[in-house]
Amino acid sequence: MNALNKIPRLFGNILAGVLMTAAAAVSHTVPAAAQQAIFTREGLVSPQVNADKSVTFRLYAPAADSVAVTGDFLPSSETDGWGTAALSEDEEGVWTLTVGPLESELYSYDFIVDGVRMTDPSNVHQMRDVRSMMSIFMVSGERGDLYSVNDVPHGTLSKVWYESESLGMRRRMTVYLPAGYGDALAGAGRRYPVLYLLHGMGGDEDAWPTLGRAAQILDNLIASGEAEPMIVVMPNGNAALSSAPGEGPDGLYPPMTRPDKTMDGSFEASFPEIIDYVDSHYRTERKPSGRAIAGLSMGGFHSYHISMQYPGTFGYVGLFSAAVRDVEEDAYGIYADSDAKLERQFSDGVSLYYIAIGRDDFLYEDNVRLRQNLDAHGYPYEYHESDGGHIWRNWRIYLSGFLRRIF
Amino acid sequence: MNALNKIPRLFGNILAGVLMTAAAAVSHTVPAAAQQAIFTREGLVSPQVNADKSVTFRLYAPAADSVAVTGDFLPSSETDGWGTAALSEDEEGVWTLTVGPLESELYSYDFIVDGVRMTDPSNVHQMRDVRSMMSIFMVSGERGDLYSVNDVPHGTLSKVWYESESLGMRRRMTVYLPAGYGDALAGAGRRYPVLYLLHGMGGDEDAWPTLGRAAQILDNLIASGEAEPMIVVMPNGNAALSSAPGEGPDGLYPPMTRPDKTMDGSFEASFPEIIDYVDSHYRTERKPSGRAIAGLSMGGFHSYHISMQYPGTFGYVGLFSAAVRDVEEDAYGIYADSDAKLERQFSDGVSLYYIAIGRDDFLYEDNVRLRQNLDAHGYPYEYHESDGGHIWRNWRIYLSGFLRRIF
Repeated sequence: MNALNKIPRLFGNILAGVLMTAAAAVSHTVPAAAQQAIFTREGLVSPQVNADKSVTFRLYAPAADSVAVTGDFLPSSETDGWGTAALSEDEEGVWTLTVGPLESELYSYDFIVDGVRMTDPSNVHQMRDVRSMMSIFMVSGERGDLYSVNDVPHGTLSKVWYESESLGMRRRMTVYLPAGYGDALAGAGRRYPVLYLLHGMGGDEDAWPTLGRAAQILDNLIASGEAEPMIVVMPNGNAALSSAPGEGPDGLYPPMTRPDKTMDGSFEASFPEIIDYVDSHYRTERKPSGRAIAGLSMGGFHSYHISMQYPGTFGYVGLFSAAVRDVEEDAYGIYADSDAKLERQFSDGVSLYYIAIGRDDFLYEDNVRLRQNLDAHGYPYEYHESDGGHIWRNWRIYLSGFLRRIF
Repeated sequence: MNALNKIPRLFGNILAGVLMTAAAAVSHTVPAAAQQAIFTREGLVSPQVNADKSVTFRLYAPAADSVAVTGDFLPSSETDGWGTAALSEDEEGVWTLTVGPLESELYSYDFIVDGVRMTDPSNVHQMRDVRSMMSIFMVSGERGDLYSVNDVPHGTLSKVWYESESLGMRRRMTVYLPAGYGDALAGAGRRYPVLYLLHGMGGDEDAWPTLGRAAQILDNLIASGEAEPMIVVMPNGNAALSSAPGEGPDGLYPPMTRPDKTMDGSFEASFPEIIDYVDSHYRTERKPSGRAIAGLSMGGFHSYHISMQYPGTFGYVGLFSAAVRDVEEDAYGIYADSDAKLERQFSDGVSLYYIAIGRDDFLYEDNVRLRQNLDAHGYPYEYHESDGGHIWRNWRIYLSGFLRRIF
């Protein structure tokens, strides 16, 4: 229970003050951390992924009446929802539960303490999904390993700002450059194909790099030779916003409402600015065979329309759980004449039109209609149907499949 | 209380399934989020920074017996510790407390619910300090504005991996490139000075960009003309580790002990590899007038020794709450002959030797001795003494001052 027991070799008395603070912080009283808090707060290990791939959760809460874990690995009465399971308290006030063994995956969970939902205070690994923080853990194996940082060459992941004249603001995007890209300081050197990878409604430029584990998947598939080295550009698809929450000039607390201009054509109309920025700042292949666009949910809708709106731009299209529905607002005429635009797109030639969706996705029927329309015109596409619904587990799988098939 | 009330214009029935999920998630029952959870979990606003710069905290916890907030803005019996204040419950089970008005600053806090310390579930803005997550908020004004993302040109912040032959691993660092750097695709173009900015014990390459608000401070000081455009390199100073927790091949759950090889000379001995990488991958000024090194606590210790170990390399040195103490381990002879190395350093000429520490810092007396030694030899330096102790509030202030004085 005492974190100090885990700190070997106290190294003379260097930083004794900080280490004393750590001792105070693990005393299980209400901590008042003098100086900088350091190392673990409570000395508990949670979660602990065991050798048999079961997982043990722990929380020190002697005054609590109930502690439960809710997570995406627990059986739920709702499709793809999170189930809940109670932890048991020992005589020292530590609540514990072991679940599983679990199949290899990246999992999410929270604790519920006397009715209050919270992240696991012993676990610094968290992700934000739209407006909620959740704790995460990884179970190794096929998918867990693909989503992990392995001992392979790593690409560079950057937060980059570009100027959008049409939207009237500086906007933030995430850019992945493959390992080896930066070795050519002179700027001459190899050109790379570019995947534009779009998030869903409520997401932002941080979604694919965090929830989607995009950099890890890319590093690993490129290292194994399963994917081509490529640049991946992850812009913010909410045309009214500059960036993820707290990362732009609106400050940490802009109104937490659904943003405007998500599916009204604004983002699609502004998209050439992003391509221009990328082609003028990076060593890109500037032709359809060197450009792909893919997205999930709203980002699938964006990819569907952007890829047909700009003929001769994208050779590869990926629609993951795509929200391919009719919308009424159309600020720039983006959604008009889609039959004619599709015909032009497919007559120009599409190297890969990749549709993926889960059987339980609430957008399943919309994707049935999408396929019926493509079939009716004889447009070729690849279709991947999976278990489950509208969740990141599926989007990581669809991305991994798409990356193996492009360029 | 209902997040759906805050979502304007439901946009036809698009994504109705997701929005229904949001409705379930705000029902204040134990949530089982079907499909993807979206928008706010509980519909509460917390924290709320009010017009008079008071701050209101809120938590929905009808089953809890006690809710308190602990934060660095509350009076504490310990120097620089976090005080604690109780929230009061209303008839609907919402606990509330308003504190302040507070002076402009970036603040940290947690809730304590029935004795369990947790981040604020209504606040997606968090930072990790070593092994603890904490919620944050910003009060605008002089310092808060300097630490905020403002409507100014922004630099690019990247996670970059370099190969360390001496340490036998790939290692991760954070690199800030100033706005305008990337405009020269060809690689010719302007060269920039480089600041190497080092973290403290327990920190990593994510510390300065998060707790230190380094990118925001740089963007703002460069935009106002108070600092020169510069590249800032933030490496990982724990020579036994590749990266921040969870970002390297050790996985999400390496042993959470104090790392080896923090102050045994390994990092200092390997430092030329970092300089070589930066000089061969970025358009840098490769001379002492174009290189600065600064660090906090252990990073100040590193800066002290690296700047004297490699003569003719750094023109500017910043020691923030530096852990300038004698150590016994010295794997590479780095700490030997420091009097002679200091003499060489100052006879070569140092443009700025900047020492800053708080009056309550547990390393204060060590810095008195450091200054006495410099005084005894007549070595010139600049000294800044502040209120408070060994905390990030001071390190942000010291960085802001140092940036205004270099290059």
